Amino acid sequence: MSSEHARQQVTMRDVADAAGVSVATVSHVVNNKKGARIGQDARQRVKDAIQELGYRPNAMAKTLSSGSSNFIGLVADAIATTPFAGQIIHGAQDEAWKHGYVLLVANTESDPAAEEAAIAMMLEHQVRGILYSTWFHRAITVPPALHETDYVLVDCYEPHTRAPAVVPDEVQGGRTATELLLQAGHRRIAFINTTSPSPAQEGRLAGYRSALDAAGVAFDEQLVLYAPSEQEGGYAALDTVLARGATAVFCHNDRMAMGLYDRAHERGLAIPGDLAVVGFDNQEVIAAHLRPPLTTVALPHYELGAAGVRRLLGIDGDGDGDGDGAASLIPCPPVLRASIT
Amino acid sequence: MSSEHARQQVTMRDVADAAGVSVATVSHVVNNKKGARIGQDARQRVKDAIQELGYRPNAMAKTLSSGSSNFIGLVADAIATTPFAGQIIHGAQDEAWKHGYVLLVANTESDPAAEEAAIAMMLEHQVRGILYSTWFHRAITVPPALHETDYVLVDCYEPHTRAPAVVPDEVQGGRTATELLLQAGHRRIAFINTTSPSPAQEGRLAGYRSALDAAGVAFDEQLVLYAPSEQEGGYAALDTVLARGATAVFCHNDRMAMGLYDRAHERGLAIPGDLAVVGFDNQEVIAAHLRPPLTTVALPHYELGAAGVRRLLGIDGDGDGDGDGAASLIPCPPVLRASIT
Repeated sequence: MSSEHARQQVTMRDVADAAGVSVATVSHVVNNKKGARIGQDARQRVKDAIQELGYRPNAMAKTLSSGSSNFIGLVADAIATTPFAGQIIHGAQDEAWKHGYVLLVANTESDPAAEEAAIAMMLEHQVRGILYSTWFHRAITVPPALHETDYVLVDCYEPHTRAPAVVPDEVQGGRTATELLLQAGHRRIAFINTTSPSPAQEGRLAGYRSALDAAGVAFDEQLVLYAPSEQEGGYAALDTVLARGATAVFCHNDRMAMGLYDRAHERGLAIPGDLAVVGFDNQEVIAAHLRPPLTTVALPHYELGAAGVRRLLGIDGDGDGDGDGAASLIPCPPVLRASIT
Repeated sequence: MSSEHARQQVTMRDVADAAGVSVATVSHVVNNKKGARIGQDARQRVKDAIQELGYRPNAMAKTLSSGSSNFIGLVADAIATTPFAGQIIHGAQDEAWKHGYVLLVANTESDPAAEEAAIAMMLEHQVRGILYSTWFHRAITVPPALHETDYVLVDCYEPHTRAPAVVPDEVQGGRTATELLLQAGHRRIAFINTTSPSPAQEGRLAGYRSALDAAGVAFDEQLVLYAPSEQEGGYAALDTVLARGATAVFCHNDRMAMGLYDRAHERGLAIPGDLAVVGFDNQEVIAAHLRPPLTTVALPHYELGAAGVRRLLGIDGDGDGDGDGAASLIPCPPVLRASIT
């Protein structure tokens, strides 16, 4: 634990001494320098010494000599205040490692000064590029410093520009949720949408309408309610859902479904017998443990992180075939549990 | 977005040319080299050129020349699969930044190969030290590679060694939870503990007993139940809690309290009128939105991360005054809501 460890660190000099070669030779072997003429024998002695002494090559020295680093930066507005952002990190990290990169993570809590400092730090460390990520899907303005490197927006986008982005396919997600209820035979399907203007609010509604259209069910605006997107909003909306004759309800998120369950249980209603329910997000700690467990549509956070890295490295294009080179849409898959008969 | 950005990057050479000085002079100014004799005029010209060209000093070159880096590594077993670990990152990052360090985060999902690779990467980047963190409080064996640098265990500890660690004070937390119920006048207080052997299982029980002792309430082992530490466990335990005549219940975690609420509501019981409830964890997305909102005791994840950095940098000692130099105990504070009359 003491800093003696640092002082005792094995250096390239130690390896050179043990192998009876110059430091330059060790460096050439370690860095696989092309064109360096080193005998098979000396090369082997260096490798043996590295093994024996437990020498670790200095990644920064390598970076410096090659002029680029093996870092990818991830600037996140809120790793901490939501269980969701973590999965973006996880997906980005797994994909980065797969391609030989290490993820440098900075959490800014949406503070512009922290954000600027984080991006500057990453640029100073010569990152290969930066993922700029928000904890919920929204429109942003790209911070100017991001233009100094390659970047991809993750779970956010810049309207009216071609800023590369990966975002969840809210329209498909809303359609999928509604289709689950249609397939179970429901025709009076309420949608409790969020009161917060957002791509999710707009996209999921468009998906709901398109699923109804495709099934030949007339859109009834009386069945679309608006409520705050947390438990209290779902709880308060249930009575209206029932009053309007719905037999099924699509909740904008799982938290609203949790509150709606509470009110349904208070009124003595059985889910899914009296009312079928589908959520959105797949917030595991809630959805998997409601009574009954909630059928929902997942926000693909892990995939957003992974796709962001692939887009940054040029492995994926924008993938939606519209040729605008901007946002890649990542599918939101259904998660079947027990709240729909 | 193209890699032209990288190619167009302003170099130290560009700054030197613009300022009419040598690259060495620029380097000396940028790195605040002591003993370098540079005229006030030249120094100002370099600073102006840096400003004008938007030059960013290369942090790795600085690190290399100073022989240490401004990185602190955080190896986490599961950033992603729990909403909790994120707060450890957040606290560690805030504290690291405060002292001029940047946090390098790696998530291993408890895979030993990923863990070894993560630690090796951090050592190669010459981190100042490593925080080794688990998403729930448990005993671990320190991975051998950690001994190559300074380290602190966060939310975990190594039994029978002096490995430096910061962990939540489970005993105080259990005592605090129980005291909240005692102070409200309850004497028949059940404790639904987890079936998983862990410092939390042991420590919270010890805290429960010590609070009862201090209040002169005899310990009744009939009132201590064991259940899986999720919603289903709390749901199943409620009937026994009532059968044993308890008027209040301390749940090992908030998830159990959520399930217990469901069963209480099914049985037509009012919380807190018929039964007072206290949880543990302060898992916000659940605790703050139950009906009624849950009074609980917080796991101090943010503080664990921050305290880990302070311990690593030698700012804090072990703080418990027992002189063993091992685990620092971080307090678990009460969070008052509406589930206790």
